[in-house]
Amino acid sequence: MSRFFSSRLADLVPYTPGEQPREDGLLKLNTNELPFPPSPRVLSRAQELTRALQLYPDPDCTLLRRELAQAWGLEPEQILCGNGSDEILSFAFQAFCSDDRPALFPDLTYGFYPVFARANGVPWREIPLREDFSVVIDDYRNLEGTVFLANPNAPTGLQLSPGEIEVLVRQDRGRVVVIDEAYVDFSRQSALPLIRHYDNLLVVRTFSKSRALAGARLGFGLGDPALIADLNRVRCSFNPYNVSSPAQALGRAILEEEDSVPLRCGAVVQTREKTVLGLRERGFSVTDSRANFVFAAPPHMGGETLFHALREKGILVRRFDKPRIAEYLRITVGTDAQMDRFFAALDDIGKEAGGL
Amino acid sequence: MSRFFSSRLADLVPYTPGEQPREDGLLKLNTNELPFPPSPRVLSRAQELTRALQLYPDPDCTLLRRELAQAWGLEPEQILCGNGSDEILSFAFQAFCSDDRPALFPDLTYGFYPVFARANGVPWREIPLREDFSVVIDDYRNLEGTVFLANPNAPTGLQLSPGEIEVLVRQDRGRVVVIDEAYVDFSRQSALPLIRHYDNLLVVRTFSKSRALAGARLGFGLGDPALIADLNRVRCSFNPYNVSSPAQALGRAILEEEDSVPLRCGAVVQTREKTVLGLRERGFSVTDSRANFVFAAPPHMGGETLFHALREKGILVRRFDKPRIAEYLRITVGTDAQMDRFFAALDDIGKEAGGL
Repeated sequence: MSRFFSSRLADLVPYTPGEQPREDGLLKLNTNELPFPPSPRVLSRAQELTRALQLYPDPDCTLLRRELAQAWGLEPEQILCGNGSDEILSFAFQAFCSDDRPALFPDLTYGFYPVFARANGVPWREIPLREDFSVVIDDYRNLEGTVFLANPNAPTGLQLSPGEIEVLVRQDRGRVVVIDEAYVDFSRQSALPLIRHYDNLLVVRTFSKSRALAGARLGFGLGDPALIADLNRVRCSFNPYNVSSPAQALGRAILEEEDSVPLRCGAVVQTREKTVLGLRERGFSVTDSRANFVFAAPPHMGGETLFHALREKGILVRRFDKPRIAEYLRITVGTDAQMDRFFAALDDIGKEAGGL
Repeated sequence: MSRFFSSRLADLVPYTPGEQPREDGLLKLNTNELPFPPSPRVLSRAQELTRALQLYPDPDCTLLRRELAQAWGLEPEQILCGNGSDEILSFAFQAFCSDDRPALFPDLTYGFYPVFARANGVPWREIPLREDFSVVIDDYRNLEGTVFLANPNAPTGLQLSPGEIEVLVRQDRGRVVVIDEAYVDFSRQSALPLIRHYDNLLVVRTFSKSRALAGARLGFGLGDPALIADLNRVRCSFNPYNVSSPAQALGRAILEEEDSVPLRCGAVVQTREKTVLGLRERGFSVTDSRANFVFAAPPHMGGETLFHALREKGILVRRFDKPRIAEYLRITVGTDAQMDRFFAALDDIGKEAGGL
């Protein structure tokens, strides 16, 4: 830290993203990316990405928002576009939290939430997950603040139903509930239809997972026009041109293939279920994930030991050094072939160590 | 504003960027973009923009920073990459300003500075430009805070020499000085060589102007590794994947043509000087701009009247409704042909109104 760094931020501990290695040959199952690229048809529109690059992007993402609204049955005024959904989430912490309105989120969830709170100088309170890692809506009753729930939750993969989300939203209409649906397309149980009925619900989505556009950085905030206007005010006080022209072009191109999303996600879900089965057969404790990752603890070997053993074999997964989940690994669902390689490595490790 | 909006931000007035119209046929001289696109060779690398889009971008911009370091004679540790230079500036307000360290900047400068200060909850103080719009270094002596200077300044286009910047940096080694060099390539008088000697100097650059990449969003913070580490801490507490893969690819492609930058900027400078001459011939007050825009007030007609008259003729320029500069227009330097169209419109307006 330099001697100039703001004392207000002195205890800021940045979020640590999963490793993005440059080495070849590694199997990357650590950052929940999709195992296949966007379709050739989308990529064939690459020329459009470089149109009029000398001009600033449309700061309102007019066409992208219009087409997204059409595809998802929304109004453009219900949509905010961001440079990834992390940016949208950060804007929500800024806009809807304050000294007397702390951020409320589970103790085990997306690790960025406490970082956003700290970076924006707002208090937060962690609500413990139950023993089985479930979120229980009743635990949020009578709490003042702004609720942030990843649903499906990360890293557990567990999901609340839209009915349960509606109960949460109705608990207190004077409180904003932010539902982070980064992984929702692998379950298709979305809270999105609720936004027309509740002005205190913000749904956050991303094109990084199900739309295979992690490299382009496109996220969305979806909610009542008044909530979206608030977020826009924060956005335009930070970076009005936050979504680049190539990102807007890619987002529009991928929307033309919206029909194929269930098919592509369905393939991942099928592999996920095989992966869960394979892990359970080997004695792992595995959660009932509704996302494109599995969350699993080996029967005997420590989670950290297994993490390093996999890394030795060129397989990256994610591990969180936190109480209750220290023995678990979060493993992104790759292709069938990639998961075969994963299981082969796992069985080798088991043999070498005399058991998993 | 929704009833949920943070009271801390209640008086936030977002920055208003220049109009980005969708209409055809308009002459856009309002946002200081370059009048020509990146070269065909850069655009021919468009295929690379869509490589591995399903993966997150490199959060450290390793290759881009390495190649930029080589091109500009720096170390990669002296470079931070941002989603445009606005993002870098916002990080600097967060990292280096606080209650006891206000932001200090001229009263007439990039209109985003007070917005950044307010959005980040830090105090600021405006130091008036002199009568002739000049920044006088001595006015900053003995002021505690963090100095932000656009150099060349916007919207005046006036520039301090590197020698004057060095005096400013040495005035107080316990204070960070941020020099925003968005327009520096149109003057080539950069403070960049000073960063190796002064650990309290941050230089901010962008590829939006001289590199014709406004649509891609690429900005840079350049300074002592400790300053850069501070900014990285803020960045990684907000959006670690802030620079998309296509932006990184475009940045690297454009760097291969670094040799052509003086040539391209030189063409703009030549047109700028012709434009200044043409305006002075018509009786305008024109500043001595070192940027890719001119700043000029008509001899008799009000600035606002002329602004609207130009808009009627399909020509967009920028105007700032502030004391002392309300009669001035900021006119981006386009191609020679575009400036011919501008002057033809100007002369028509003069004829219709019986004089400018």
